[in-house]
Amino acid sequence: MEKKPYVIGLDLGGTNSVFGIVDKKANVVASVSVKTRGHGTAEQYVDDCCEALKPIIDQVGGIEKIHAMGIGAPNGNFYNGSIENAPNLEWPGIVPLAQMFSDKLGIPVALTNDANAAAIGEMAYGVAKGMKNFIMITLGTGLGSGIVVNGQLVYGCDGFAGELGHVVIDRSEHARECGCGRKGCIEAYCSATGMARTAREWMAIRNTPSTLRDIPSDQLESKDIAIAAAQGDQLAKEIMDYTGELLGRTCADFANFSSPEAFIFFGGPTKAGDLLMNPVRKAYDENVLFNYKGKAKLLLSELDGAAAAVLGASALGWEL
Amino acid sequence: MEKKPYVIGLDLGGTNSVFGIVDKKANVVASVSVKTRGHGTAEQYVDDCCEALKPIIDQVGGIEKIHAMGIGAPNGNFYNGSIENAPNLEWPGIVPLAQMFSDKLGIPVALTNDANAAAIGEMAYGVAKGMKNFIMITLGTGLGSGIVVNGQLVYGCDGFAGELGHVVIDRSEHARECGCGRKGCIEAYCSATGMARTAREWMAIRNTPSTLRDIPSDQLESKDIAIAAAQGDQLAKEIMDYTGELLGRTCADFANFSSPEAFIFFGGPTKAGDLLMNPVRKAYDENVLFNYKGKAKLLLSELDGAAAAVLGASALGWEL
Repeated sequence: MEKKPYVIGLDLGGTNSVFGIVDKKANVVASVSVKTRGHGTAEQYVDDCCEALKPIIDQVGGIEKIHAMGIGAPNGNFYNGSIENAPNLEWPGIVPLAQMFSDKLGIPVALTNDANAAAIGEMAYGVAKGMKNFIMITLGTGLGSGIVVNGQLVYGCDGFAGELGHVVIDRSEHARECGCGRKGCIEAYCSATGMARTAREWMAIRNTPSTLRDIPSDQLESKDIAIAAAQGDQLAKEIMDYTGELLGRTCADFANFSSPEAFIFFGGPTKAGDLLMNPVRKAYDENVLFNYKGKAKLLLSELDGAAAAVLGASALGWEL
Repeated sequence: MEKKPYVIGLDLGGTNSVFGIVDKKANVVASVSVKTRGHGTAEQYVDDCCEALKPIIDQVGGIEKIHAMGIGAPNGNFYNGSIENAPNLEWPGIVPLAQMFSDKLGIPVALTNDANAAAIGEMAYGVAKGMKNFIMITLGTGLGSGIVVNGQLVYGCDGFAGELGHVVIDRSEHARECGCGRKGCIEAYCSATGMARTAREWMAIRNTPSTLRDIPSDQLESKDIAIAAAQGDQLAKEIMDYTGELLGRTCADFANFSSPEAFIFFGGPTKAGDLLMNPVRKAYDENVLFNYKGKAKLLLSELDGAAAAVLGASALGWEL
């Protein structure tokens, strides 16, 4: 039986919840955005979202045209469709969000974490088309990962596999504190936030002049570093090299796990292109085990940043 | 159609090639051992092995009673049934050993690396029965690993996934050289050989008295350290603690990848039991991400060491 013509994708972020209605050719034919915060309970959030969805669902011919819904959300657990103890959301404990949307909309709903949704999106629509083994690395506030083995997302025993951002790369006393409560996680160095930390730390330690010094410290973003590096700012270039080296050699360690045919990088810092990726590739090649040399491609996602997360979530919906 | 009653398992090691004929209840009903070296070519090795196998095949009623053969071998590639560039074997390049045995014996033959075979053996006969996500760690001359995700061995894009022994745990200038040509791999610290290196290094650096000093340096084995530790030797106990801590915290990093329900340890050093495993468990609990706390069991293989490798290989044969 042919599937109904549309799925709903939801990219649930700490600030915005972006819904898209997506057709079989990956066109986002309608979309709506709802603030994630300020609804009080999760029940009210779902009610408010469904209210906001109504016009765009009607626009495509009503709910009977919608096959299913897919959600990408922080701390999302694919196995039970719940968001569990998400530090950046307002809802404490375990929220069975897939079930709640399914009850309200009357369609099947699947949920996974945002980096896994990105990996599914790359398989369905992006550079991972046809790949059976790859690792998705998303660089944002955190460093997320979605791991695909034998064509399947790796969820592990509990639905929470693929937290490569919390691999420890510095066990010294100088290691940075991570949001997870431990120290030295790669997330604290190579996420967008981690890059800004590097800039603040180096500006404090060094006297090198830099245009980054003109930006108020707490407003400095990875984007500023990329722009400065592109303009030839020495300190910014060194930050790109440092970030790339840490990422590249850590990915070389990850190759020992699943020997992927590609690493796919996504997120704000990747907009720097070769300024980041050249040092990543150099460090990867220098550090990877001889068995794996020359095998994995280090790629940038080609999906449009704004649509990619919604597309990833929608691809999960098509799997239902 | 019911499968024929026996499979052949081959544990191909650097020194000995141990063949076992195994029934459906995991009894090794007959076995024979052949030296791995000294046959000249791989062709001659296969011929000599088949000659040695003939009497035990006849013993169970001839080759028509044998369903298949499974081989566990260093640098074994499951995808093409070849041994590829194995530094500890006499045959250079790529040896299509599965095909060669299959041609000679007239039965299907599968091959994988030794640690993967051990993982398959644990799933079929050992403590991993019924598990869908676990990581096998084998401690011997090297540190091998077999990773199971969604009930399947992780082979990666090239058949060589699961080389966790080559995850780098020390990037300092003091890092130990590893057999792979790089420095700081966990194999250089936590394999049986790595433990002996720790003993030699610490005896050189420290003045602590130890019964280990009575053993000629190049004859010292991990077994001696375990025995000395059990007898209360302080230096030996500290070596067990150090090895366990490195293993435990590195396994905590591995959890970020596949969130396994268990780590299963196998090999000589595990005979030390709690002397090794208590520090492993302590370091694992102290280092693992909060998401995973209390989830993975840290287990010892319960398969008999001598038979386990043959049983693992035979389990691969049953999959054909």
